[in-house]
Parts: sequence; structure tokens; C-alpha cells
Amino acid sequence: MNLKELSQMLGLSQTTISRALNGYPEVSEETRRRVMEAAKETGYRPNRAAQRLATGKAGSIGLIMPISPDHSSDMHFAEFQSGLAEAAILHDFHFVIMPSTAEDEAQAIRWLVASGSVDGYYLAYVREKDPRIAMAKSLSLPFIVHGRSSGLDLDYPFLDVDNEGAFYDATRFLLQLGHERIALLNGQADLDFAHRRRLGAERALAEKSLLLDPRHTRHSFMGDEQGYRGMKEILAGPDRPTAVLCASTVLALGAVRAMNEFGLKLGTDISLIAHDDELPLLKPENFSIPLTTTRSSLRAAGKRIGDRLIAMINQSDPAPPEQELWKVELVVRASTGRAPA
Amino acid sequence: MNLKELSQMLGLSQTTISRALNGYPEVSEETRRRVMEAAKETGYRPNRAAQRLATGKAGSIGLIMPISPDHSSDMHFAEFQSGLAEAAILHDFHFVIMPSTAEDEAQAIRWLVASGSVDGYYLAYVREKDPRIAMAKSLSLPFIVHGRSSGLDLDYPFLDVDNEGAFYDATRFLLQLGHERIALLNGQADLDFAHRRRLGAERALAEKSLLLDPRHTRHSFMGDEQGYRGMKEILAGPDRPTAVLCASTVLALGAVRAMNEFGLKLGTDISLIAHDDELPLLKPENFSIPLTTTRSSLRAAGKRIGDRLIAMINQSDPAPPEQELWKVELVVRASTGRAPA
Repeated sequence: MNLKELSQMLGLSQTTISRALNGYPEVSEETRRRVMEAAKETGYRPNRAAQRLATGKAGSIGLIMPISPDHSSDMHFAEFQSGLAEAAILHDFHFVIMPSTAEDEAQAIRWLVASGSVDGYYLAYVREKDPRIAMAKSLSLPFIVHGRSSGLDLDYPFLDVDNEGAFYDATRFLLQLGHERIALLNGQADLDFAHRRRLGAERALAEKSLLLDPRHTRHSFMGDEQGYRGMKEILAGPDRPTAVLCASTVLALGAVRAMNEFGLKLGTDISLIAHDDELPLLKPENFSIPLTTTRSSLRAAGKRIGDRLIAMINQSDPAPPEQELWKVELVVRASTGRAPA
Repeated sequence: MNLKELSQMLGLSQTTISRALNGYPEVSEETRRRVMEAAKETGYRPNRAAQRLATGKAGSIGLIMPISPDHSSDMHFAEFQSGLAEAAILHDFHFVIMPSTAEDEAQAIRWLVASGSVDGYYLAYVREKDPRIAMAKSLSLPFIVHGRSSGLDLDYPFLDVDNEGAFYDATRFLLQLGHERIALLNGQADLDFAHRRRLGAERALAEKSLLLDPRHTRHSFMGDEQGYRGMKEILAGPDRPTAVLCASTVLALGAVRAMNEFGLKLGTDISLIAHDDELPLLKPENFSIPLTTTRSSLRAAGKRIGDRLIAMINQSDPAPPEQELWKVELVVRASTGRAPA
């Protein structure tokens, strides 16, 4: 039963029904009673988030939409937001979103909090020693951090995936296959997750007395074009690596195209492991040669952060755990093979 | 000059500076004067959207975030939203976003309007004879429609691209190359843009006394997997087409994979034209064989809709035009060639 059907059944306009259900004064008591009864009988359930918004009892999550200098839209952000929306719909929350450039971000949060228009918020795109975390702690609203900030001696609620462990495992797996020259196409250098992934790769290499070669390392926005260009430069350069780690399947899409151009067969001539955020658009199993990945769902993280934040706002009992670190799975497919002799 | 630098220069905390600039009472008049002068001298410009939010003078755009039954995040939605954010940042607006399933959408809008938390909104994912348009006209807030609704005899502000013309041109181009069996991988059948693209293809075919073959037509969510599956079924079936029209480069990504599996060389054995929304992740020139496309930037549409809606809200003079139809460009690349003999 939707609003339209209810309207036809009762012979009342949809507006009247909405007003009746929301307690607006223009509706007579008799009409209201009729509507309420019909709604109850038919199991009609209006959008409660909208109702709460209309009555001023809105539950709302604030978030900053990052606007990058080159205005690239970010699939990773969109996927995370979808998970958050799943939580919001379940708990009748909506979003208040402030687009902001990176340099205005701390202020944007401060004012979002001061405005009274949000009940809680989350921080993402965390950097090393990120000053926003101390700031958030000093403000009065519930917040949660997606990721962690290296070099901060502070306690704060977060959800992170074990980025260091993921890239340690991936690198060790490549070493076991005999690879020694391993390239890294990483996210932007100032982002904490990219820092940790790099540390993981370096730790595994160090155990074999090897180093990450700066000529084979790239930090960039995680787009297809960046993966293509980075891989092409590396393949055209000296001491060509036999394997590559990609911080996203989006980077891998471009990297694989560059390999094809160089006539390299993936999994035979060169190996690749990508981090898989489970973006529905780019499934690693759908690549012509399915990709070996470190897997962790970004949507599930968004959902979990939404659930935890809403529990904090509602002061649910039992309180959600403060800090969570998700293990990352290594999924072996055809893009990894023994190092060429 | 950012807030941090201003704070260091004045020897005042960032909080104090924000409060001074926003007129909070905790700050002494002398401090406020110092801050205001320094801000003026250094050209410091705080995030005005945030300021307006804090002072209750927020400009805000309401939008519904569609939650599809399979909870797929939609890159097309994300890209449009980025364009809208460009407009919002320029004019100091923020977003209030309500996640909603398709069936709750009309109600979500009604309540968004009733809540007083938005100054205007836009409608997207328009269907044939879409009842939301008459509803929006009956409400008191500025709105604009992205797309149009076939079969509605109403005047309303919209921005649309010439979807019918685009697919008419694309189909005619394929016919000129000698193709007669042309497949169509389209968007969801109930969406108006998909309906119009289909009409365009049918019109061009009819001029040659040809029909669209239902066995070679698919309507689906525009994802990579849907493109792959649809193309695979069609290639495995009878009367294999020699060309295919795709409603998105995302569908094309999957379609090309299916062609590769069948050992078909794109541009020689089979031709393909995709609609290109200029998604930065999936540039048609970056496919191994660059794609011929009908091109229209979804981000530019988002920006334009944001600009127009904000002008309507601010009652700018001159008023923006009511209705706009953008022409779509046919860009010929290597994925189209003469029909095989």
C-alpha cells in the first residue's frame, strides 16, 4: 500500500492524508481518525525520515563532500555514501552535506556543528596527525572517524580496515612467488590509508632485505587514467618490475590497459594485486584476467559507520565499541603467477 | 590565507576567530575588531556556506538519493552531484539529502518541502507521465527537473539533453555504414531518457523500413555487469547483430568484454556506439579500441541545474530560461566501421 493507493481508497487527496498523518492543524479530527485507521489496517508506513524532518525531530548525519582541485568525482566516496544511506534509511535519518575543498574542511565541520542542523557527523580522508580529530573531540557532538590518523596520541571512535596488514600480506604473497621488483600504485601520499599500505609493503620487503624502489612508486588520485599513466611510465623505465600492487581496482583498470599496450600477459609476464573496495562497477572477477585482491567492502564500512554513529546519537544501550579494525582478506585469482625466470 | 595561518598571525585560537567572524557573544568587541581587520587585510574568506548554516541563513538544495532495490551505487548519480556541488560552493549553498526508495520518493519530496529545511529542490530519474511533476507544481518551492516526462501536458522548468536526437543520429550513422541488425543496451525501461533513446533508434530504423528486434534489446540498470550479460546473451543468440548502441560507457565496458570473449574485433567484426556522460573514470578514448560516442557532460548538467535553481531561489534578474534542451554531439572513434560483408 502506498500513498497513492491509500488516497484512492479513501477518496482523499494525498496532501490531506500526509497532513493528517503528520498532525497538521488544517485537517478535521474526523478525517484524521479515518486516515489513521486506514493506515493502520492497510499497514501503510510513510517515510518516517521525511516525517521527522517535517516535525523538526529530524535525525541527521552531517558530512563533508570533498571537492578535489581537479573536480574529479570519486566513486569510492559514492560507494561509501551508499552504505551510509542504508543505515540512514533503516533508522530514519537524512544527510546534511556541505561541499568543501580540503583547506576549508575543518571550518566546514565546525560550522556544521555550530548550526545545530546535524546530530552527529563523520570524518573521512584522514591524514597523518590530522588536526580535525582533536578539534572534533573538543566539540560537543558525536562523531566517528573512517580510518585512523598516524602519529596522534589520542583516543577517538573509529572504524578502519587493516591497510598495513593487507599490503603486508599481498607483498609477502608476491615474494613467495619469487617476485623481487614490486611496483606500488598508491593513493594520495598525504592520506593515512595510503601511508599504511606503503608501510605494509615496505615491512614485507624488508624481511627479505629488499626496498621499495622510488622509481616504481606512484601516489595519486585513484582514477583509471592515473593508473594507466603511472604504469606506462614504470614499464617504459629501467629495471622493469615483475609485479605491481594497486591501491584500488580503479587504478588497476588503467594499469592493465598499460600492460596490454606493452604486450605483457597478466599473471604470466607480470603479476598484479589490487585492493578491492567491492565497487559494484568494477568487480575484480570481471576483468579479462580476474584480479587477485585484498578485499574489504567500502559499502559495509559506510553501513557500519552509519549504524554506530546513529547508536551514539540515540545513546543506545549497549554502547557500540569505540574502535574497530577490520581484517582484510587476500583473494587469489589469475592475475598473480610465479615471477618470470 | 587560511584559518590556521590567521590564527598563528593573531595569536588567537581558531575557535575564537571563527566565533569573532560569526558574531558569537563570547568574544570581546576589541578581539572581534582585531579579527575583522586582519581578515580584511589578508583577504581571508571563511566558508560562507558554513557561516550561513550557522546563522540560520543557509541556502540549501534538497535532493532525493535514490536507493535501488539491489542497492547498487550509481556513478551517474555521483557525477551529477559533483556538478551540483560546484554550483553550491560558488553560491554558498549546501545539500539536504534524503535517501529514499522509488516508491517513497513523492512523499519524501513533499515532506522535504514541508520541513522548511530546503529552499529549492530538483527532480531526477523522471518517468513517463511522472506524477511528481504536477505535485511539485502544486507546492510552494522552486524546483527544476533534470530530464522531461513524456505524455505530460504541463509547463515546468527543466534541463534535458536531446536523447532522441542523439540515438537517432547514432543509428543513422550505423545505417550509413551498412549495419541493419542493430542491438540496443538501454537504461531501465520506465525512465524517460531510455524511452526517448529507444524512440530515436526506432525512428532512424523506420526510415530504412527496419525495426528494432526485441531479441536484441535490453533494458537494465546501467552497470558493467548488466552490459556484459546482455551482450553475451545477444551474441549467443540467433541473427547476431553487427552493431550495438549502449546507453552508457559503463554498459559498454561490459559489452566490450563479452565481445572479446566471443573473439570479435571491435570496429571490424562488430561496431559499438555508447552514450558518454563524460564520467571521469570511464573515458571512451581510454578503451583499448576508443569508442564512438554521443557525448553530453552529466557534470555540466548538474552545474547548470544548480546555477539555475539557485538563481530561481535568489529571484535573480534576469530570470533563467524555463526550459533548456542540450544538443548531443556524435564523436566518431575507432569502435565503428563498415558492416561486415
